[in-house]
Amino acid sequence: MTSLTLALDAMGGDFGPRITVPATLQALRLNPLLKIVLVGDKPQIDEYLTCAEPQIRNRIEIEHTTEIVTMSDRPVHALRNRKQSSMRLAIDMVQDGKAQACLSAGNTGALMAMSKVILKTLPGIDRPALVSCLPAVNNTPVYLLDLGANVSCDSETLFQFAVMGSVLSETVDKTEAPKVALLNVGSEEIKGNDQVQQAGRLLQQVPQINYTGFIEGDEIYSGNVDVIVCDGFVGNITLKASEGIARLLVHQLKKSLSKGFFVQLLAKLIAPRVHSLLNQMNPDHYNGASLIGLRGIVVKSHGSADETAFLQAINLAVTEAQRRLPQMIEDRLESILLDINS
Amino acid sequence: MTSLTLALDAMGGDFGPRITVPATLQALRLNPLLKIVLVGDKPQIDEYLTCAEPQIRNRIEIEHTTEIVTMSDRPVHALRNRKQSSMRLAIDMVQDGKAQACLSAGNTGALMAMSKVILKTLPGIDRPALVSCLPAVNNTPVYLLDLGANVSCDSETLFQFAVMGSVLSETVDKTEAPKVALLNVGSEEIKGNDQVQQAGRLLQQVPQINYTGFIEGDEIYSGNVDVIVCDGFVGNITLKASEGIARLLVHQLKKSLSKGFFVQLLAKLIAPRVHSLLNQMNPDHYNGASLIGLRGIVVKSHGSADETAFLQAINLAVTEAQRRLPQMIEDRLESILLDINS
Repeated sequence: MTSLTLALDAMGGDFGPRITVPATLQALRLNPLLKIVLVGDKPQIDEYLTCAEPQIRNRIEIEHTTEIVTMSDRPVHALRNRKQSSMRLAIDMVQDGKAQACLSAGNTGALMAMSKVILKTLPGIDRPALVSCLPAVNNTPVYLLDLGANVSCDSETLFQFAVMGSVLSETVDKTEAPKVALLNVGSEEIKGNDQVQQAGRLLQQVPQINYTGFIEGDEIYSGNVDVIVCDGFVGNITLKASEGIARLLVHQLKKSLSKGFFVQLLAKLIAPRVHSLLNQMNPDHYNGASLIGLRGIVVKSHGSADETAFLQAINLAVTEAQRRLPQMIEDRLESILLDINS
Repeated sequence: MTSLTLALDAMGGDFGPRITVPATLQALRLNPLLKIVLVGDKPQIDEYLTCAEPQIRNRIEIEHTTEIVTMSDRPVHALRNRKQSSMRLAIDMVQDGKAQACLSAGNTGALMAMSKVILKTLPGIDRPALVSCLPAVNNTPVYLLDLGANVSCDSETLFQFAVMGSVLSETVDKTEAPKVALLNVGSEEIKGNDQVQQAGRLLQQVPQINYTGFIEGDEIYSGNVDVIVCDGFVGNITLKASEGIARLLVHQLKKSLSKGFFVQLLAKLIAPRVHSLLNQMNPDHYNGASLIGLRGIVVKSHGSADETAFLQAINLAVTEAQRRLPQMIEDRLESILLDINS
């Protein structure tokens, strides 16, 4: 691995530097060739840097700014009026070649709007999509997109997301002819709204994409397909609802195993096994979604991410930078789009 | 309880009479005052009735028809051309006063269209909604609607669903001023699409509804609200995705507890507790969604329901008939709508 620089919006998310700075220190300890630029309010950031070992501190740079994007900023407002914000300056660093990737836990809509305007989309792509890799029954990675960057999508946008998802699965996981499906309320062709039906017809005409039809919500985690496409409204709610029920199950399981002396004793003995499972299923383990379809790397962390979860998102940004993901996607995308249009 | 008659589409769902008839026998054993009319192909139904005890068989009537609604029938097609189908005849029986409720595991769109046209909606309601009661952290019932009867909804429809959900929670669970929320991609007012934003503004103006704002997907199972409103596309996918991840968790848990002799032994000892939990969390336990906003009772079962799950749906129909749910909703709805419009 050659040296890599990551630009990090230190102020984003529910907790700001209290989470982003300690996670940065951890990431630097894990990756000796990594450098991180913390973008944000220097005094606030410094507070969490006092105990950093010199060899770690040496690989941190601070880009001072006091402006931030708030969670209630509309994307257009943020784009026009937050030009000195920590989020914006982090994206600018990628555009200026000073960093190979940027990362924020802030306002998704603003991140999407700024990234699109500053970094620009790849040829043939109109809108970037927020994508994440989910756990499935057989441990094969499943990509779900869009996760909330595009609240409404027309059929052409859904089609482009399907192509990008397919390329992602092909290039990152080396999946041959990834199975691509559209998320819908039924698997029959007559089901769903106009956008999803029209997107299905578009995908059927393209032999370069291994389109397998509609799937329903309960099949997301079945491992039967490699890429699942939907608009950002549906994707965001679906992903978060899954996290919600996973937490509920864990809560109920813990409660049910805490009643009665004998069961409690057994539960304690069995605890390490259950814990390792829970960690595996923990949504935090999967924190970090990528905005793909851009000419640069932008990773979005959950706003509520804790230190461990935020570290996951940093690791994702590092992996994508090492793989030079946008270039990989662009190359494959170009050949597919050339085929489609010829 | 006085005698009740239920009209059951015996042919609906993935398995038809093989599931619907044995579940019927179970329901009749549990409810001595219940009568069930099985609507469908008599020879196929009879096959599963041979072993029925005479005192159970006496409370079954068969309404013979060979026509069925298929899963690929479009709603309008089913409405026009399936007038002798098992689904249609079951609905007709409710309209004719021959049954107090009907139940089908068939095509949701067709069931919705037929019910709406034949039974009609309550005053002030334009479209019925499919609603179900979900498990939440504190075991309080949470109603989610719509679950797939209305793929696209404008803001006025979402508003009406919110009113109906509130009335349902008030009348069935005796919740005082039920907390009503709209499902969205963020809790801030600027988040979401036009429909959900406009529905939020409508609900804010109505003091009769305890509207608490937007909630995100991970809060569905938090128990913080009593009623959650969304369009049928989002509701259907969200509910099914939750079922999918619940199954994945159970699968992983079983797998993790089957490795190693000692753990296996402990797992066996602990099994009854875990089993009772899994049953509690099993989506089948919650099978059966109601089409509310109609002048009669229509219950929809999962197409893939097994005998136990289908029995749950029958029990739901029975409970609603005992409560005379449409009348209860109509009374409360009338007073709310009068207040709103005065």
